[in-house]
Amino acid sequence: MDRQGYAVAIVGASGEVGRSMIETLERYPIPVSSLRLLASKRSAGKVCSFRNETYVIEELTEQSFDGIDLAFFSAGGSVSLKYAPIAVSKGAVVIDNTSAFRMDPNIPLVVPEVNAHVLSKETRLIANPNCSTIQLVVALKPLKDCYGIESVNVSTYQAISGAGAKALFEYDEELSDPTYQPQILPTRSDEVYYQIAHNVIPQIDVFMESGYTKEEIKMINETQKILDDNDLKVNATCVRVPVRYGHSLSTTVKLKSPVKDRLEIIDLFKRSNDIVLKDDISCQEYPMPVYLQHQDEVFVGRIRKDLFEERVIHFWVVADNILKGAALNSVQIAYYMHQNRLLGD
Amino acid sequence: MDRQGYAVAIVGASGEVGRSMIETLERYPIPVSSLRLLASKRSAGKVCSFRNETYVIEELTEQSFDGIDLAFFSAGGSVSLKYAPIAVSKGAVVIDNTSAFRMDPNIPLVVPEVNAHVLSKETRLIANPNCSTIQLVVALKPLKDCYGIESVNVSTYQAISGAGAKALFEYDEELSDPTYQPQILPTRSDEVYYQIAHNVIPQIDVFMESGYTKEEIKMINETQKILDDNDLKVNATCVRVPVRYGHSLSTTVKLKSPVKDRLEIIDLFKRSNDIVLKDDISCQEYPMPVYLQHQDEVFVGRIRKDLFEERVIHFWVVADNILKGAALNSVQIAYYMHQNRLLGD
Repeated sequence: MDRQGYAVAIVGASGEVGRSMIETLERYPIPVSSLRLLASKRSAGKVCSFRNETYVIEELTEQSFDGIDLAFFSAGGSVSLKYAPIAVSKGAVVIDNTSAFRMDPNIPLVVPEVNAHVLSKETRLIANPNCSTIQLVVALKPLKDCYGIESVNVSTYQAISGAGAKALFEYDEELSDPTYQPQILPTRSDEVYYQIAHNVIPQIDVFMESGYTKEEIKMINETQKILDDNDLKVNATCVRVPVRYGHSLSTTVKLKSPVKDRLEIIDLFKRSNDIVLKDDISCQEYPMPVYLQHQDEVFVGRIRKDLFEERVIHFWVVADNILKGAALNSVQIAYYMHQNRLLGD
Repeated sequence: MDRQGYAVAIVGASGEVGRSMIETLERYPIPVSSLRLLASKRSAGKVCSFRNETYVIEELTEQSFDGIDLAFFSAGGSVSLKYAPIAVSKGAVVIDNTSAFRMDPNIPLVVPEVNAHVLSKETRLIANPNCSTIQLVVALKPLKDCYGIESVNVSTYQAISGAGAKALFEYDEELSDPTYQPQILPTRSDEVYYQIAHNVIPQIDVFMESGYTKEEIKMINETQKILDDNDLKVNATCVRVPVRYGHSLSTTVKLKSPVKDRLEIIDLFKRSNDIVLKDDISCQEYPMPVYLQHQDEVFVGRIRKDLFEERVIHFWVVADNILKGAALNSVQIAYYMHQNRLLGD
């Protein structure tokens, strides 16, 4: 960086995650000397504010990355596949929030609390994991360190905002107009659309031949990669629920060593700096998305020891999918690299 | 019964399940010579129609069961504990939809498709299981018969109507008035209330010291009892979602013998008369509550073989919690007993 800070670009600046990236970057102590907001031609010309200045969104082109030190991408996989290598070739460090590079063995997939150690001065392209995966691995980390983990089984309760601003709009339309015809959920790129209001939809992203959805496969593969354990058995069932912000996970973990009781796990999570424990059954305390939306932390509650299996525990994890699940995690990656002098020359 | 049919009583006739019992009984070929609708003093005087006749709800008293052959109870556990033995002592067969007698070793807990064989001419009191349990065991039955079952792990997505008509009213209020203060959910009898609109609540019924809720313990114990297997390992995480009618279950089952692929399970369910298979990933077919509410059947989809474990499968089960989960199952118990001449003298 020059002495004033980094020249930053945000690709997909007009989207749900892009706007959250601008807001998050604004409040993080990362020095920014210039900001370039990029999007498709359709969104070019829109105006955003950042640290008391006004910025106009520009159309993304191959020249957009000239002079850029740090670029955040959140405009879909195909945009990242095309433009992230260009940004890197122009000397930028890229933090990509799409699935384009996540499973590339040469690209680090990072949740700073879990595996920041894979970042180095040579890292030019970093993948930001899937939203549900991020909050899952943050909760798994203390368990892995203390007991080791044999298997993980998750059922998700995923918020509508994960499918973008248009899906949120669709939800509001469905609530106010019973004749509205869905055209976004479950997956824009798929062929059939279903109502999410007063419903739950057990499909996120398209289907694979195995019967799993791509979202489920992402959670499985990315969890293995971030926890650096190809023997870890993971299963996911991904379900969209009528919640605006905040994914919830019903999680079952088989540990490698036995647990005495639920208090032992509660104590472990209490000592972790990376999660917020919300588990007091005496006053009905547990995390819920509508009460925790727009917050940065990963919240854990409903901790139980299995009634039959010595090494199995169950718990519930909630985090804001747009913040910790996307924009915040990307900015935290940048902040970690900044603090550890891994950004710039 | 006399030659025209049974003298039937419905206790809790003004409630969500009671009204559904009247409607279900109306369309089932069970001969009814007289109908007595019973409820608390507060609901007495309300009017209902049954098979083109008008009935007035009467206040429940100890004399209410004089001359009654068959009584359905759905007015809360304490009402059943007090009045079901009175009804039995007056000669009625009682089908009880509360949790009052479910775990009594002397009382059969029945889902007709699964364990009707426990009913006999001597049976006077039958417990109707918890709503989520019913649809779970209907789906487990073909698997148990074909492979044997070692363990079951369920995360639920339970509809608001399971908490009664007042909870449905509360949901509508929350949707239309953001300042509305919740006073029913998660559990009327508990102390703190949370919003269900745009939210998911991981608490149904009150907490036990183990960290499990009573609803979760019910699912665990009742599944063991109905499947007649005390070694069956069951876990449940019960969650309320903003859906009016229809519970969904994300289900993981460890079988006792291996499965080749998902098609083997699809084929097994296809051959079952007791579930409706909705599993065609080529056209995004899977069961969803808003599209299946007010239907009688148990629907299964999203069938997958675990990617790591030979004997583990995952699937998704949806059924109307007021119908198959409560009123319909009770009427089906009565119908089975009628057909097999187990009712009356």
